[in-house]
Amino acid sequence: MRKDLDHLMHTHNVDALWIMGPTTHNPAMRYFCGEASLTGADLFKRRNQPPTLFYRSMERDEAAKTGLITRCYDDYPFRTYYEQANGDISQATALRFRKMLEDLHLERSRIALYGKIEFGPQFDLVKQLQTLMPEAEFLGFADDPILLMAMMTKDEDEIERIRQMGRVTTQVVAQTADFLSQHRAKGGILIKSDGEPLTIGEVKRRINLWLAEQGAENSEGTIFAIGRDAAIPHSTGNPHDVLRLGETIVFDIFPHEAGGGYFYDFTRTWCLGFATDEALGLYEQVLSVYRQVVQELAPNRFFKFYHDRTCELFEAMGHPTVRTNPTTQEGYVHSLGHGLGLHVHEYPVSGAYANESRDLLAPGTVFTIEPGLYYPQKGIGVRLEDTYAVLPDGQITCLAEYPPDLVIPVRAS
Amino acid sequence: MRKDLDHLMHTHNVDALWIMGPTTHNPAMRYFCGEASLTGADLFKRRNQPPTLFYRSMERDEAAKTGLITRCYDDYPFRTYYEQANGDISQATALRFRKMLEDLHLERSRIALYGKIEFGPQFDLVKQLQTLMPEAEFLGFADDPILLMAMMTKDEDEIERIRQMGRVTTQVVAQTADFLSQHRAKGGILIKSDGEPLTIGEVKRRINLWLAEQGAENSEGTIFAIGRDAAIPHSTGNPHDVLRLGETIVFDIFPHEAGGGYFYDFTRTWCLGFATDEALGLYEQVLSVYRQVVQELAPNRFFKFYHDRTCELFEAMGHPTVRTNPTTQEGYVHSLGHGLGLHVHEYPVSGAYANESRDLLAPGTVFTIEPGLYYPQKGIGVRLEDTYAVLPDGQITCLAEYPPDLVIPVRAS
Repeated sequence: MRKDLDHLMHTHNVDALWIMGPTTHNPAMRYFCGEASLTGADLFKRRNQPPTLFYRSMERDEAAKTGLITRCYDDYPFRTYYEQANGDISQATALRFRKMLEDLHLERSRIALYGKIEFGPQFDLVKQLQTLMPEAEFLGFADDPILLMAMMTKDEDEIERIRQMGRVTTQVVAQTADFLSQHRAKGGILIKSDGEPLTIGEVKRRINLWLAEQGAENSEGTIFAIGRDAAIPHSTGNPHDVLRLGETIVFDIFPHEAGGGYFYDFTRTWCLGFATDEALGLYEQVLSVYRQVVQELAPNRFFKFYHDRTCELFEAMGHPTVRTNPTTQEGYVHSLGHGLGLHVHEYPVSGAYANESRDLLAPGTVFTIEPGLYYPQKGIGVRLEDTYAVLPDGQITCLAEYPPDLVIPVRAS
Repeated sequence: MRKDLDHLMHTHNVDALWIMGPTTHNPAMRYFCGEASLTGADLFKRRNQPPTLFYRSMERDEAAKTGLITRCYDDYPFRTYYEQANGDISQATALRFRKMLEDLHLERSRIALYGKIEFGPQFDLVKQLQTLMPEAEFLGFADDPILLMAMMTKDEDEIERIRQMGRVTTQVVAQTADFLSQHRAKGGILIKSDGEPLTIGEVKRRINLWLAEQGAENSEGTIFAIGRDAAIPHSTGNPHDVLRLGETIVFDIFPHEAGGGYFYDFTRTWCLGFATDEALGLYEQVLSVYRQVVQELAPNRFFKFYHDRTCELFEAMGHPTVRTNPTTQEGYVHSLGHGLGLHVHEYPVSGAYANESRDLLAPGTVFTIEPGLYYPQKGIGVRLEDTYAVLPDGQITCLAEYPPDLVIPVRAS
């Protein structure tokens, strides 16, 4: 949780976090700045001190909305450093930041870097600063033990926001099911009132509209994939595809609060009109594994335990899994789930590279459970996914209930 | 243009561009990958060679949609490097990338880094690689002379896409004006049919809906700000504000193609019902400067020439400008405009730090013209903005016409 930050910084011997970039669609910045909208900023969180936010003059009112200690970049007039650097913009920028860092007493500090931002200009700045400030140490984490670790456990307000996105998500899923059901089938495909085939592109456009109506965004896209596409977990679906009856549709929707806030993550597998015996068989296996694993969930256990358990259950049914073959493209081809919050993928991790001391289902964690089976050559993919939270008392709860049904009825022609 | 890339790489002695991150909401990646949707990838563009895209197995069909030469990360099994690194994920990742770079013959190359991505993990990777590959040089640009330079001039297809976003934008602006006009005024504010005041939050929600209907996104937000907020250029507007008659509203809308494609950028200033003499006076000054500058635009001229000209015209009217005081918060407080494309801000630059050899209105450039006047203490802000392109024959054209009118009529109560 947020309150763990200073302790985590201490444990990993980090003096300051430097978070860069806009406040929108930038999880680390959003964590500190909330819903204020700044197009470019720098935030410094020193150990045992409140954060300081640097802002552009034109964005002073947005900066004030954060409630943080703020400073205007204009206090460090760019013109001065530009002249000092003889018109070299890279050097001028570094000289300006050196002064800002010096004023924060960070010239001999270990500074961890964060922010979703264009890599090139920032890399140049850090390289130049390292030369100008040889006693400072700038570092990034492949496997962040500080900020992502704090983010991993959510407080009640954060869980409530994710639950609210769950309500939005399941409402849009219900609207999508109703929309499909209202169409007639003809020649094995869904058709519109004008007799033309309905396409995946049109379905996705409706989904975006319904999300926008509720103030949500799906900036990372939505998977609505049919047939062979459904059998490849990250194929997003071809907008020109028509909706063929009886084929599996994987509908994986992961919207977030407008501006880049908390996510929800949810998947259903649907067949329009009817399911083949083969699809129904795989669906029933996935559903039974889903139910078995959910029933066994207990707080504070290693998340990977349940991933391994899922592999074991699927292997007992005769399917290849990522445990028997890490690069398999058939059977169970991904990990059981992932944490989520301001990122769609956060800690805890459940797959092969999970960390035993970190990736526990601790109170405050929010994570997905998403077993699936994929057979591209048969054109069948099945995945079921819901988002769960471990509450402060250790109770584990699904954040938005929705029926797992496979077949969506459609109107006969 | 795209075809200039090899030449620009040669001029700046760069052997390869390494573009990192997802293909959505990541302009550099989108430039090469088009509309394919990959959540994580690495693209290497070597000089005088076609690009190579690395993809995850689950995203193989999306990777294939790019039409590029592709390679699966699984050809470099992570498990091997993980064992070699004794379970250190940071080190394992670097060992894997070293092998990928070696197979591309980049171990002694100058490699420029690009991509909108979480900074920390990538910074760690590049730092580790630099140690493993001491003869390679990794660099970023504060002021990119290669990829952003190529992107600065658009081909006809790119200009047509921006023009199409202009059509979407102006249609949504017209819908917004109609929506406001349909409301009644009562007690100096707009009210809904239920007698409650209309709020900026509700207007913005409609705007998002109309954009979604046309398959556009405004992931960087929309400015719809009234009164004092309108007088601070980047204040986005308070969702709880009511719509007071006679006050200036700055409506700045910059949507893009879904998934993070080409932008449009557009601003109008509106007063509901009537304008005060003071607001009308400032509006007429901004409109006359806008018209004067647009009339003088000529191809291949230095963009900053028109910024200086705008300052000159506003100064002659008695306003402070960023030329007389770079940190002024009153009068004309920003630069005349900016290039746009896959980023909302690109080259050419028009302000104080423009580059005489680069920031020209060359054929293929697309840029905004957006003079404005701001008086926060009076609660008045005025800005007018359209997007222009220089066509191959040197003709300069507005990409979406829309009336500049100030007053939006509303229904009497």
